[in-house]
Amino acid sequence: MTNSEPPTEVPTSVVVIFHSGYGHTKVQAEAVRRGAAGVDGTTATLVAVEDVDAHWDDLDAADAIVFGTPTYMAGPSAQFKAFLDATSPRWQEQRWKDKLAAGFTNSAGVNGDKLATLQALSLFAMQHGMVWVGLGLLPGNITADGSVEDLNRLAGFVGAMAQSNADAPPEFAPPATDQRTAEHLGTRVATAAARWREAHRIELVP
Amino acid sequence: MTNSEPPTEVPTSVVVIFHSGYGHTKVQAEAVRRGAAGVDGTTATLVAVEDVDAHWDDLDAADAIVFGTPTYMAGPSAQFKAFLDATSPRWQEQRWKDKLAAGFTNSAGVNGDKLATLQALSLFAMQHGMVWVGLGLLPGNITADGSVEDLNRLAGFVGAMAQSNADAPPEFAPPATDQRTAEHLGTRVATAAARWREAHRIELVP
Amino acid sequence: MTNSEPPTEVPTSVVVIFHSGYGHTKVQAEAVRRGAAGVDGTTATLVAVEDVDAHWDDLDAADAIVFGTPTYMAGPSAQFKAFLDATSPRWQEQRWKDKLAAGFTNSAGVNGDKLATLQALSLFAMQHGMVWVGLGLLPGNITADGSVEDLNRLAGFVGAMAQSNADAPPEFAPPATDQRTAEHLGTRVATAAARWREAHRIELVP
Amino acid sequence: MTNSEPPTEVPTSVVVIFHSGYGHTKVQAEAVRRGAAGVDGTTATLVAVEDVDAHWDDLDAADAIVFGTPTYMAGPSAQFKAFLDATSPRWQEQRWKDKLAAGFTNSAGVNGDKLATLQALSLFAMQHGMVWVGLGLLPGNITADGSVEDLNRLAGFVGAMAQSNADAPPEFAPPATDQRTAEHLGTRVATAAARWREAHRIELVP
Repeated sequence: MTNSEPPTEVPTSVVVIFHSGYGHTKVQAEAVRRGAAGVDGTTATLVAVEDVDAHWDDLDAADAIVFGTPTYMAGPSAQFKAFLDATSPRWQEQRWKDKLAAGFTNSAGVNGDKLATLQALSLFAMQHGMVWVGLGLLPGNITADGSVEDLNRLAGFVGAMAQSNADAPPEFAPPATDQRTAEHLGTRVATAAARWREAHRIELVP
Repeated sequence: MTNSEPPTEVPTSVVVIFHSGYGHTKVQAEAVRRGAAGVDGTTATLVAVEDVDAHWDDLDAADAIVFGTPTYMAGPSAQFKAFLDATSPRWQEQRWKDKLAAGFTNSAGVNGDKLATLQALSLFAMQHGMVWVGLGLLPGNITADGSVEDLNRLAGFVGAMAQSNADAPPEFAPPATDQRTAEHLGTRVATAAARWREAHRIELVP
Repeated sequence: MTNSEPPTEVPTSVVVIFHSGYGHTKVQAEAVRRGAAGVDGTTATLVAVEDVDAHWDDLDAADAIVFGTPTYMAGPSAQFKAFLDATSPRWQEQRWKDKLAAGFTNSAGVNGDKLATLQALSLFAMQHGMVWVGLGLLPGNITADGSVEDLNRLAGFVGAMAQSNADAPPEFAPPATDQRTAEHLGTRVATAAARWREAHRIELVP
Repeated sequence: MTNSEPPTEVPTSVVVIFHSGYGHTKVQAEAVRRGAAGVDGTTATLVAVEDVDAHWDDLDAADAIVFGTPTYMAGPSAQFKAFLDATSPRWQEQRWKDKLAAGFTNSAGVNGDKLATLQALSLFAMQHGMVWVGLGLLPGNITADGSVEDLNRLAGFVGAMAQSNADAPPEFAPPATDQRTAEHLGTRVATAAARWREAHRIELVP
C-alpha cells in the first residue's frame, strides 16, 4: 500500500476547463483559476473547451480538474457536453481515476436549474472514478443581516454558482460576489489537491 | 376508448398536502390552495401532513395532488418523506395513477438544493404513474428591468420555489412575491385538472 | 375558460425525436412511434435529430413530443443536447407550453445513469412549460416469479429505459422486452395526448 | 499550511451508518463494513440508524462516513432522512467538513430510482462540505461475455447499488455479487480515508 519515495517537488496541477457562450462563464472560470493559482505550489491552467485538443496531456497529468459550463436549457451546454462525451476513451482506460474533480456554472435565473448542471458534472466525474470536492461554504444572505455581497449568496453546495442578467455584458456580470465565490472554489480545490497528492504513496483500490 | 356519458357536474378536486416545520411552507401552501380555489368549479383542500390519516379518502378522490415540503438537508423533510413512504400500498394498487401532480418547496438559501426537493417530489409522482404539471412561468428578475417583485423571481420550473430568511417569522416570510408565484401554481394545476378530467371518458392505457 | 366549438377532427399528433449513435436508441424510438401510431386517431412521426431542421413545424404543431437519447457519459448525448439548446428561441416565445412531453433512453449498463438522462429530459420539458407523462408501469422482474421478459424489467418510472450490450449490434439489442416497454410508452403518450387535447377548449393559465 | 508533526498512529476510522426496513440493506451495510475493516490500520464501525444517539461521537470523530438506506418511494427512507435532518446542528457548526463520504442503497427494481437516492446522499454530504468518494468501478455485465456475477453488475457509479427481490428474505438477497460490490466500496473508502488523513497537516481553506 505504501512505498518509501518522498513526495516529488512537482507542483500540484489544477486544470480549469470551461465553455462560455457569451463570456460570463469565462469570467467565472478565470476567478476559479485565480483562486487555485493563489495556493503555494500550484500550477493552475485555464482551458477553453474549444482548445481542448491542445490540452489532453495537461488534463491527463492534472491532480484536479474543475469543470465549468453555462446552464443552457436545464443542463450543461452542448459544447461542453461534446467535450464530456469525448473523454469516453479515457474513461474506458480509467485514466482520470482518483483525480479530484469540482464544478461551476452560470445562468441568468438565480435557480434556473443550476443545481442540475452541477449534479450532471458530478455524475460525470463519478463515472470516471474521480473524487468530488464541493464548494465547502455555508449559504450566504439568509438572514436579515445578510447581503448579496456575502460569499455563496446563491446558496450552492455541489459547486460554485453564478448569476448574470440576460442583458448584462461580461464586463458587468457575474457580479464580484459570485467571482469571489468562484475564487473560493479554486482555492479549496487546489488545497485539497495538495493534500490528496501528498499521500500519493497510498494507492486506492483498483 | 370513449363512452357517451357527459362530464359530471362534480367539482374538480385539488388537494394540497404539506409539511411545515416553522410555518413558512404553510404560508406557501395556503397560497397554492388560494390559487386553486380561485378557479371556477374547483374544490381546493389544504391538508397538513400530520393530519393525513383523516384525509386519505380526499387524496384518493382528488383530480390533482400538490405536494409541498421545506427543503431540509438537501431534500424533503423527514416528516414529509414519512407520508410519501406511507403511500406505498396505494402505489401497489395504482390508486393514484393518472392523477395530476405538482410541487413546491421553501428554504432559507435562494438555491439551497430546492431543485433537488422538487425533483424528488416529481420522481415520487412518476412512480405513482401520475402526470406532472410544472410552474409554467418564464424566469423573473433576469434583466436590468427585473425586480424581486417579479413572478418566479427565483427562476424555478419544476414547481414553485420560495425563500424565507432563517431569522424571519412566517408573518414576514416567504415574501409576497413568492406567495404570488405559489398562487400561480395553484391556479395552473386547478385549470389543468379541469382540462384533464373533462376528457375522463378517454382512459389511459393500463 | 371554455368555448362551444366541438373538438376538431384533426388527428392527435405525436412526434418522437431522437438521437442514436450506434442504432440501439433508434430501435427504441421506432418502438415508441409504433406504440403511438397504434392508438386510433393518432399521427406519429419519427424524427432523427440530425433532420430536425426539416421538422420544426411538426414539432410546433405536435400535441405531444417524446424525447429520446442514448445515455453518454452520465447524460443526454451532445448531439441531442445541441437540439435541446436550439429550442431556446421557442422557449422564449413559449411555443411548446402545455404540450405533453415524455422521454426514453438506452445505455449499456442496467443503471448507468439512465435515470439522470430521463430527469434531464424532464427538466428541459419543465422549462418549456410542458406537462410530463411518465411510463406508468409497475416495475417488472422484482420477484421469484419475475423474468427479464416482464414489461419494465429495468424498473424505470420517469420514462422508458432500454439496455443494450456494448458489443451487440442493433439487430439484437435492445432486447424485445425493452422494445415492448418503449411501445407501451408510445401508447400511453398518444392516449394521454388524445385526452389532453379533447379538452382544448379549456386554456391553462398563461 | 503545514506543520512538522508526523502522522499519528491512531487508526483510520470509517463509520457505516444505515437504515434497513427488512434486512436487505443491513446485509449490504455489513459488506461495506467488512470491506473497510479489511484495510490495514482501519477501524470500521457499523451503526444502525435507530442507535445513532449512542454514536454521535463516533460520527464526529470519523475520517469517513458511509451512508446507506433502502430506496423507498423514489428516495432515502423516512427513517434515514430523520437522521440526515438531525445532523443540522452539526452542519451549522461545520463539524463534518472535509470528512470523506460515500453511499449505498438497495431496492427491488434494478433501476428503481436507486440513482436518485445516491444523489440525495451525495447532495447531503456536499451541504456538510464533505468530499465524495464514488464506487470507482467500471460497469459489469455489459457484454456478451459478462455475467450477473460481475462486480458492479448494476452499473452504478455514485455509490454501491444492490437489488433484492421483493419476496426474497435477507438470507438470500441481495445476492453475493452485490455484496462483493458493497465490499469494494468499503475497501475503497477506507483506502481513500487513509490517504486523505495522511496529509492531515494540510488544512483545507475554511
